[in-house]
Amino acid sequence: MTTSTTGLVLALAGGVGGAKLALGLSRILPPERLAIVVNTGDDEQFHGLHVSPDLDTMTYTLSGLYNPETGWGIDGDTFETLQMLNRLGADTWFNLGSRDFAMHIRRTELLAQGSSLSQVTAQVTANLGIEHPIIPMSDQPVRTVLDTDAGTLSMQEYFVKRRADPVVKSISYVGSADARPSPGFAAALDAATAIVICPSNPFLSVAPILAIPGVRDAIAGHGAPRVAVSPIVGGTAVRGPAGKIMQELGADVSVVGVAREYREICDVLVLDSQDANLADAVAAEGVEAAVMPTIMQTNEDKVQLAERVLALAADLENRRS
Amino acid sequence: MTTSTTGLVLALAGGVGGAKLALGLSRILPPERLAIVVNTGDDEQFHGLHVSPDLDTMTYTLSGLYNPETGWGIDGDTFETLQMLNRLGADTWFNLGSRDFAMHIRRTELLAQGSSLSQVTAQVTANLGIEHPIIPMSDQPVRTVLDTDAGTLSMQEYFVKRRADPVVKSISYVGSADARPSPGFAAALDAATAIVICPSNPFLSVAPILAIPGVRDAIAGHGAPRVAVSPIVGGTAVRGPAGKIMQELGADVSVVGVAREYREICDVLVLDSQDANLADAVAAEGVEAAVMPTIMQTNEDKVQLAERVLALAADLENRRS
Repeated sequence: MTTSTTGLVLALAGGVGGAKLALGLSRILPPERLAIVVNTGDDEQFHGLHVSPDLDTMTYTLSGLYNPETGWGIDGDTFETLQMLNRLGADTWFNLGSRDFAMHIRRTELLAQGSSLSQVTAQVTANLGIEHPIIPMSDQPVRTVLDTDAGTLSMQEYFVKRRADPVVKSISYVGSADARPSPGFAAALDAATAIVICPSNPFLSVAPILAIPGVRDAIAGHGAPRVAVSPIVGGTAVRGPAGKIMQELGADVSVVGVAREYREICDVLVLDSQDANLADAVAAEGVEAAVMPTIMQTNEDKVQLAERVLALAADLENRRS
Repeated sequence: MTTSTTGLVLALAGGVGGAKLALGLSRILPPERLAIVVNTGDDEQFHGLHVSPDLDTMTYTLSGLYNPETGWGIDGDTFETLQMLNRLGADTWFNLGSRDFAMHIRRTELLAQGSSLSQVTAQVTANLGIEHPIIPMSDQPVRTVLDTDAGTLSMQEYFVKRRADPVVKSISYVGSADARPSPGFAAALDAATAIVICPSNPFLSVAPILAIPGVRDAIAGHGAPRVAVSPIVGGTAVRGPAGKIMQELGADVSVVGVAREYREICDVLVLDSQDANLADAVAAEGVEAAVMPTIMQTNEDKVQLAERVLALAADLENRRS
């Protein structure tokens, strides 16, 4: 028995990179064999509406609605609502499309009616025809807050409003002490026969998930094979501010730095082919290195990487048994 | 001194017809001489957002944003947000455009932050460049509820969802006992040197305003000249279900029925030219009749009717002094 044919794959993901690999996994695994757990540390209220950027990126990616140009938002979306909000005096630095607004309106309404974020997510993803479970990391609020040289900023203030320009001094995950893994996440942690850490920002996407009490320990002590894909390629982030933040926090901006970050929670780290020369240095951190192309442009790329990641997990399991 | 040159004109209005006459008044009177008080009995929550149909019709009309085809909504608005809400499982029988949604989002946010409906309305109308005060009748919720042969329906359920089809047995204004006139309405009631009842539905637009404790008495006992424009022309409503409802409630569907309804709160009732033959019957109800064209199609029509209404008020005042 290997993870490539049976058992539950738990994927931890943040934004665009994570959604790409999750899409690949969803093309291979049937719904009951995949649990996609998504960071909600970036969630924020805009115009009184609950916006969950990473859940939405995942939802739009898996439903085929996503905008391949930006990676976020809905393809072909328009901006009448936001423009009108601007006319009405609202501060509209965070870009939200008119169709995208529907998601935030619906989520906010259902939350106000007493549904949990997990329940809301299950409902809207089902409505969009998504069969694979997309699971928020927690139903309690956890907010990633960056202490920077420009003051304390929420994730979206830092990343979108300030264009990741301020120097990050430290990061905290406000509310995490009182948060619990969502029911779906807790169940997946129990049942997982493989854990995949998608190529997402270690500090801004994966760390908030790990900050929920019990999660880091559960993954660190988990018996299932654990495979991570490095979001750092060639000494820089494939996308987003991960490289800059790692540097500012004094980490090594390379797959070696990622290995150091993940060493307790991952057995195999997937390095991009252009980082092949760092495989030994990764191994020296106590993490097995696997080298392969990791840049996902086409859907074929996503499926291929997902297949290889699952094969690595299966191989690990075979070697252990 | 006549109301045509000094003093405050208090206009009571509901939806499309009321907004037309209010637009005419706003083209003649400077902002400090006009208080437009609007029915909020039709307000309803849609998708968790506070929608104020009559305030919005007035706001869009006075800002020039309104859709001249429908009378409601924003000209050229699109429906991406609503269509997406529908895909997300929401019940979307109430038509809301993508730009229109911005109004409801903004209102809901500001209300949630503690602003009153009056304050929210003042802010958004100012943002849209409207100088004349648009004032909700109350900052407390009053909801027009229709007891019909199809059950108890809110105004929008009756008018939009059920297309005014059910037979109306009675109408109530839920919450009115606990409502107070908004601060702007109360001040205008004190200061008014003329009161104009716009051509709006007597039962669904004007009655909710009168149902607020103290309002009917204040207008009934008011010293200022009071002019109403009949929404019933030629034995039927110019627009909307007023005629049907009057009939179902046993009222005379004619300007005579309107006169009977308004007799305590109005000195002069403006009848359309085609109802000239009913002037004596109106007078027999104790209300002076004034006959003139009242159908407002162009902006010139609106200004002309407003001028004539103000002249009637001035004439009344002159005759009294």
